Amino acid sequence: MPADIPYPRTARTTPTRAPQRASWDRELVHRILDEGYLCHLGFVREGAPVVLPTLYARVGERLYVHGSTGSAPVRAAGGAADGLPVCVTVTHVDGLVLARSAFHHSVNYRSVVVHGTARPVTDAGEKAAALDAIVDQAVPGRAADCRPADRKESAATAVLAIDLTEVSAKTRTGGPNDDAADLELPHWSGVVPVGVRYGAPEPAADLAAGTPVPDYLTARPGA
Amino acid sequence: MPADIPYPRTARTTPTRAPQRASWDRELVHRILDEGYLCHLGFVREGAPVVLPTLYARVGERLYVHGSTGSAPVRAAGGAADGLPVCVTVTHVDGLVLARSAFHHSVNYRSVVVHGTARPVTDAGEKAAALDAIVDQAVPGRAADCRPADRKESAATAVLAIDLTEVSAKTRTGGPNDDAADLELPHWSGVVPVGVRYGAPEPAADLAAGTPVPDYLTARPGA
Repeated sequence: MPADIPYPRTARTTPTRAPQRASWDRELVHRILDEGYLCHLGFVREGAPVVLPTLYARVGERLYVHGSTGSAPVRAAGGAADGLPVCVTVTHVDGLVLARSAFHHSVNYRSVVVHGTARPVTDAGEKAAALDAIVDQAVPGRAADCRPADRKESAATAVLAIDLTEVSAKTRTGGPNDDAADLELPHWSGVVPVGVRYGAPEPAADLAAGTPVPDYLTARPGA
Repeated sequence: MPADIPYPRTARTTPTRAPQRASWDRELVHRILDEGYLCHLGFVREGAPVVLPTLYARVGERLYVHGSTGSAPVRAAGGAADGLPVCVTVTHVDGLVLARSAFHHSVNYRSVVVHGTARPVTDAGEKAAALDAIVDQAVPGRAADCRPADRKESAATAVLAIDLTEVSAKTRTGGPNDDAADLELPHWSGVVPVGVRYGAPEPAADLAAGTPVPDYLTARPGA
């Protein structure tokens, strides 16, 4: 699908509020997904919602979500002939927005919500590529610099695939939007920027002395 | 409820995998919740899961979740006599764990999963206190330093309350757990610490020159 064709709007990707913050732009959605590696995966178990944090990767128009073969969503997806209905949400907080009024306080953020169906990846080649992608999503360049999963490890790991078909982004940027009547109030107003901080890599206790820190770690943004 | 009495274990707060990472410790749960302000709220709409990022606050054994009166979960909670079944999840990422093998790659994290029922807060006093708590959860000290919501603003804001009764935490800490057979591999292994970075407060374009930055912003951890 060309990147300049937006995702189609559906009833559940059209927000009931703050519609000016919503977008179906494919490039924006990809950018938001590519900046993260942790999603919140929602599914329904015995009629009730469950939301679990887990790792993911985007490969083209597909999300891969990491699981264990014993985990609840993996068992549910494997047991459902049509796959498991899921909602995958990725959120980046960019700032705390402080207005003069409590009401106009807000958060600058970028989020993507994916509605879809999760299916276990059973093809060995696709699964290996998905596991590489999940490692590289968190640490770009790492998949090529570690021992790949052997057959037993691969069998103990489950990967769910969710096609990106029903997707939307939501973003808020900029400063506070105070009411004109509040502008004379004495309270400080503005934005506190928020981001991710990466610390200096800490070698494992059993790492051989002198093992160099790889470039893909030292070159990391925010490090 | 005394802080040294753990949350009761239930079928859905007992994990099917990595049980050593699970905890029902009340103080740990509170600490994880108190460190954040953004949750992922899951609910079921027309049989399918929905996961939305939103702001929350903890007050004792209750969570308050912020919404707009027009938002989907708020309308669903208000329309359901017994409240809306929800799952609220809060996750902090503390580190990327790089092992010699792809299989043992992991993430250090602390998360809390709350299963419960969301009910709209209708009492004016409780609602005002909950809105203050939501502002203070993100920026401790701010609620006392802004104009409180007036009647119209309060009516346009919805707050959902969820009692903390069915709750668990999950944490991973420490370095990689490589297999003995992999220890001689040449790959760097260890942990890349991850945290939240707060930037210098950026005043609003319409803020009067000379307005001091409040202490509760400059004293912030990570700032």
